[in-house]
Amino acid sequence: MGLSRNPLSGSGWFYEHCQMWPGCALSIQYKSLLLEMQTPFQLLQIFETESCGRMLALDSRVQCTEADEFIYHEMLIHPAVFCHPAPRRVLVVGGGDGGAVRELLKHDGVGHIDLCEIDRNVVAASREFLPSLSCGLSDPRVSIHYDDGAVFVRQRRGFYDIIVSDASDPIGPGEALFRQSFLEDIQNALRPGGIFISQGESFIVHFEFFRSFAGLMKEVFPSVSYCWFPVPTYPGGTLGVFLGGFAHDFRIPRRSPPPGFDNQVRYYSAETHKASFVLPPFAADVLR
Amino acid sequence: MGLSRNPLSGSGWFYEHCQMWPGCALSIQYKSLLLEMQTPFQLLQIFETESCGRMLALDSRVQCTEADEFIYHEMLIHPAVFCHPAPRRVLVVGGGDGGAVRELLKHDGVGHIDLCEIDRNVVAASREFLPSLSCGLSDPRVSIHYDDGAVFVRQRRGFYDIIVSDASDPIGPGEALFRQSFLEDIQNALRPGGIFISQGESFIVHFEFFRSFAGLMKEVFPSVSYCWFPVPTYPGGTLGVFLGGFAHDFRIPRRSPPPGFDNQVRYYSAETHKASFVLPPFAADVLR
Repeated sequence: MGLSRNPLSGSGWFYEHCQMWPGCALSIQYKSLLLEMQTPFQLLQIFETESCGRMLALDSRVQCTEADEFIYHEMLIHPAVFCHPAPRRVLVVGGGDGGAVRELLKHDGVGHIDLCEIDRNVVAASREFLPSLSCGLSDPRVSIHYDDGAVFVRQRRGFYDIIVSDASDPIGPGEALFRQSFLEDIQNALRPGGIFISQGESFIVHFEFFRSFAGLMKEVFPSVSYCWFPVPTYPGGTLGVFLGGFAHDFRIPRRSPPPGFDNQVRYYSAETHKASFVLPPFAADVLR
Repeated sequence: MGLSRNPLSGSGWFYEHCQMWPGCALSIQYKSLLLEMQTPFQLLQIFETESCGRMLALDSRVQCTEADEFIYHEMLIHPAVFCHPAPRRVLVVGGGDGGAVRELLKHDGVGHIDLCEIDRNVVAASREFLPSLSCGLSDPRVSIHYDDGAVFVRQRRGFYDIIVSDASDPIGPGEALFRQSFLEDIQNALRPGGIFISQGESFIVHFEFFRSFAGLMKEVFPSVSYCWFPVPTYPGGTLGVFLGGFAHDFRIPRRSPPPGFDNQVRYYSAETHKASFVLPPFAADVLR
């Protein structure tokens, strides 16, 4: 293989080349482009890929693929939900693909979910092309709001047991969801004992973001932890979520999965819950 | 960004496009190519990359980068070594870059290391361009043999406390190190209570390999476990190692790191040791 020849050149390959992981790029081969549109907020694309099922990309960054989204969505939701004694009202900010909502609906106690997505085209595209993600969006427990999550959360006080920030990268429309003012509004919107979960990028390839956002979280929440897991189609192949709350040690679930729950998940278990919070020394120091 | 335009085209990018992860490819930007040679066994390249330090590639597949090799080499060596009560004689098959030897030398008890590398050019290139990996290769405890590992191990009987197969992918020169006959020769070359460690690819993106090699390992060793960890520049961003032995539960170290050991490692700790053996249900089933 020659050096100057790019074996991936030409169409048929999607390239994620993001300033969040400079000098590295993941390429994913596709069979067809099912949808491409410039929305008021971002470039939205849905691909039929060669080996990862269908894929949603926003501004040329992978949001999810059918092959590995189950890991992200299970680990975004279940560690936090099993750390809450009785979660009833939940807000999801972002998450227009529906994956987070699908996982929340596996919990009988959850009675009401507000989904606040800034871009209605993401919801529409997911309903049409990603039914395995969007399957829960028509559930009667779910209310969809097309609004800026940072504005929406400011209007709610002491209302939610769990708030999930299923944000894209802290670049573009997702940027507001990583600011201190947003975290303070989240804190006000939570009921006593409430839990906040935020998409937390990779503790390895986004180490500077990880360190800086951990600092912001610790200013707002007395208890902050980071739970990580593999997602092959995200930059660096791992992603993590920050959990923020008031007293609880998130490494220890407060409730056990009910009978039959293990038939509904493929990554989450009582064992993966605990192990996912273990960080190597160079990263654990950041959260101390 | 247009669909037909490849932002990574032209020289300056290395592309890993491997049949082990079809339809996906990692690209790494480089500043310069420090060495390129066709050896009797493979294409050997050393790059100065933009963001991952220096990188060794064999047959256009990333073997290690200075940025993240510490995770791979620490987790290849330390879980197994701390599971052995008194490791003295060690064989490393492959591993010509020296990273595995460097980690082994952090253990005072290890008195003799045989390194059997098929391609002397890998050792020479690493000595010249990757001193942070090859730094231990001149240690008096180390003997380097330029030979086929599968042949070398057949000539030793009941000799080693630990054998490490630091193989490249099971394609090309590394293929012989994933055959059942090799595992049987390994078993014969181990002393009672000895431990075998093999590079084990990713349990996610190489799931079929993971399942099939786990089956082979279980035919040869009564105790088999899989320990995994993130390596951003490997396909899918995670890698694992198989551990095989005779009775011990590898999740539980037999010895604790000695005082000061934590100053010599960045990923390994008593906590990461245990957590790294936890697999999600879909993969844990394979090892049961």
